Amino acid sequence: MSEERGSQSVRSVRGSAIRDLLAITERPGVLSLAGGLPAPELLPTVRVAAAAEAALGSPAALQYGVTTGAPALRDVVHARESAKLGRDAGAVVVTHGSQQALSLLAQALLDPGDVVIVEDPGYIGALQAFDTTRARVVGVPMDADGMRVDLLRPILERGGVRIVHTVSNFHNPGGATLADERRRELARLADEFGFWIVEDDPYADLRFAGSTVPPVAAHTDRVLRLSSASKIVAPSLRVGWMHGDAGVLALVERLKQGADLCGSSLTQAIAAELLADTDWLDDHIATIRELYGERAKALHAELTEAFGDRLALTRPEGGMFLWGEFADEVDTAALLPAAIDAGVAYVPGAAFAVRRDLTRALRFCYTTSSPGDLREAVRRLATVL
Amino acid sequence: MSEERGSQSVRSVRGSAIRDLLAITERPGVLSLAGGLPAPELLPTVRVAAAAEAALGSPAALQYGVTTGAPALRDVVHARESAKLGRDAGAVVVTHGSQQALSLLAQALLDPGDVVIVEDPGYIGALQAFDTTRARVVGVPMDADGMRVDLLRPILERGGVRIVHTVSNFHNPGGATLADERRRELARLADEFGFWIVEDDPYADLRFAGSTVPPVAAHTDRVLRLSSASKIVAPSLRVGWMHGDAGVLALVERLKQGADLCGSSLTQAIAAELLADTDWLDDHIATIRELYGERAKALHAELTEAFGDRLALTRPEGGMFLWGEFADEVDTAALLPAAIDAGVAYVPGAAFAVRRDLTRALRFCYTTSSPGDLREAVRRLATVL
Repeated sequence: MSEERGSQSVRSVRGSAIRDLLAITERPGVLSLAGGLPAPELLPTVRVAAAAEAALGSPAALQYGVTTGAPALRDVVHARESAKLGRDAGAVVVTHGSQQALSLLAQALLDPGDVVIVEDPGYIGALQAFDTTRARVVGVPMDADGMRVDLLRPILERGGVRIVHTVSNFHNPGGATLADERRRELARLADEFGFWIVEDDPYADLRFAGSTVPPVAAHTDRVLRLSSASKIVAPSLRVGWMHGDAGVLALVERLKQGADLCGSSLTQAIAAELLADTDWLDDHIATIRELYGERAKALHAELTEAFGDRLALTRPEGGMFLWGEFADEVDTAALLPAAIDAGVAYVPGAAFAVRRDLTRALRFCYTTSSPGDLREAVRRLATVL
Repeated sequence: MSEERGSQSVRSVRGSAIRDLLAITERPGVLSLAGGLPAPELLPTVRVAAAAEAALGSPAALQYGVTTGAPALRDVVHARESAKLGRDAGAVVVTHGSQQALSLLAQALLDPGDVVIVEDPGYIGALQAFDTTRARVVGVPMDADGMRVDLLRPILERGGVRIVHTVSNFHNPGGATLADERRRELARLADEFGFWIVEDDPYADLRFAGSTVPPVAAHTDRVLRLSSASKIVAPSLRVGWMHGDAGVLALVERLKQGADLCGSSLTQAIAAELLADTDWLDDHIATIRELYGERAKALHAELTEAFGDRLALTRPEGGMFLWGEFADEVDTAALLPAAIDAGVAYVPGAAFAVRRDLTRALRFCYTTSSPGDLREAVRRLATVL
């Protein structure tokens, strides 16, 4: 049910299949469901320009900043995360997107030979970060309720597990959300075995159906929780953060000094202003949710109409991705060039495989296409499959 | 004459003494010569605000970007660096300040047990980046002409040397510039022994006396050359870069995907516009040079008047730092608390020591103080010493 991926040399780090693909899918005429980008029409250019101008009233916005992040930004993040948890969120370090949080945590917590448990299919950014250590990456399958937490105990009993990584809400690429009872069980296991849970939660605010489930971090303090302004404000602010245990975060701060000294005072000032303006932010997030909800529904309907029972689909309650798995012998990686020739792109499941055979699976991103484009993309896909 | 610093565990990375100090020296009333910041009054807030507004005319400025950096920015950097070298600058990767370039190169090139040669006193950011690998860091002393390149051969003949790191112009903290003949000899040694030179050159444009020396990279292609917009435009753009060998840079790109996915499209668009506007940039750099030149001269004169032959000083031809060494038994680290009580701060030499005893040495930064403040700072220092 689970198996190690094999330790990797620092020099054999895998490239991201997705980022390599992006170059191809940006070919004119291709309707790309392969990316993982926020809808460009909702990026708040006017609001950011105003915040930039305000911040640049002081030269401090152009100067070096403190390694842990601008105090005003850390304060608003702390308040935001404490509200989500229903308790004090602990220490906060602002990172260069939550990708840097993954990278620094991998450096801080993992020694060669340590075991990291990830979901399978896995989030590629996390796999890349863990691959640069010489830790052993072990995949655990998911179902419609997220990671199969019931499969963890035998792996934990073999020893050496240092981190369990989970994208708890609207998994990338799997689409599923970790069920409440599984979150509580994962927290109990962390308390019992003493590993760290890395709860990677960039999509929590993008829920457009169902109801909010409390974070894993609501149930134990053995969680380093990651989130980001990328999906609710803008990726190019490069403002992510992690919060939790002060001891781990002090080590992360030292490692961040060596990694890049500090983040951008300018983009952190912009992020602090926009995240603190809750009236604007709540409205903005509501707009994103509504658009993504419509698009997710449209894509699900089109795929169901085109492929019926041949294609098992997640029904996302939020986030940016829809995951599908064909019932018949389809090799989604082998078919991709033909799909691109037909003018449509997706990411083959194999790109996310830790150990499972995901040959028949594929990931769609619905955020950047209108319902009309989604309909046309599925029509093109059907001509190839 | 040289000795290894000892390999370091990833978990025992040293904090930056300087950054820890900054918290103290920001106490009101302290005249700080301890920092390493650009003069805030020269940070181009109005020009950056205009560039930000222009960039934000397109949502692309808020979207994810490519890992290697925005093409427009890479183009202007490539042209700029090729002009400095008098030949094609090779591949370019934009990094989050040149600190990230150091960190990624350390990951890309160093295995446990490899040897890295650095100058002693050393640049703290480089020491931190190398400390996170398990490489052995070996220090080579400097004199008024920079690194004692004549001491390298016996170390190289012992084998295992993978990188020689040098801050070739206006060394931080040592103030010296690597002499032309030493640059040529270092290049010859790289060709003979096959190591990589990391030429860390953020201050080249800040020359206010003497004449330009061609980069080490003008003499061999075994150089990864690093520079940055931090000292000529603004640190908070977090735009640094490296250029050189395409094979090494391809590996760096993969590692950057895992480290932080990509830089900020917004700050890269701003940097591209300002670096390409050579009329503005040349004027702006000339203004910085003039101001720093005046301040360096003023500080040198005040220190000479106050301490005479007791304090041996570098006479910087550019950059941001002046290095001093007392002739008598002075412990600059032990005296720092008394200096701060007297209202003046500096960085003790010991903070930069790789292996040498730098107890009597200290680093001054002159960029952020007026001549009047420099005079008063030296007066306060003299009361303590």
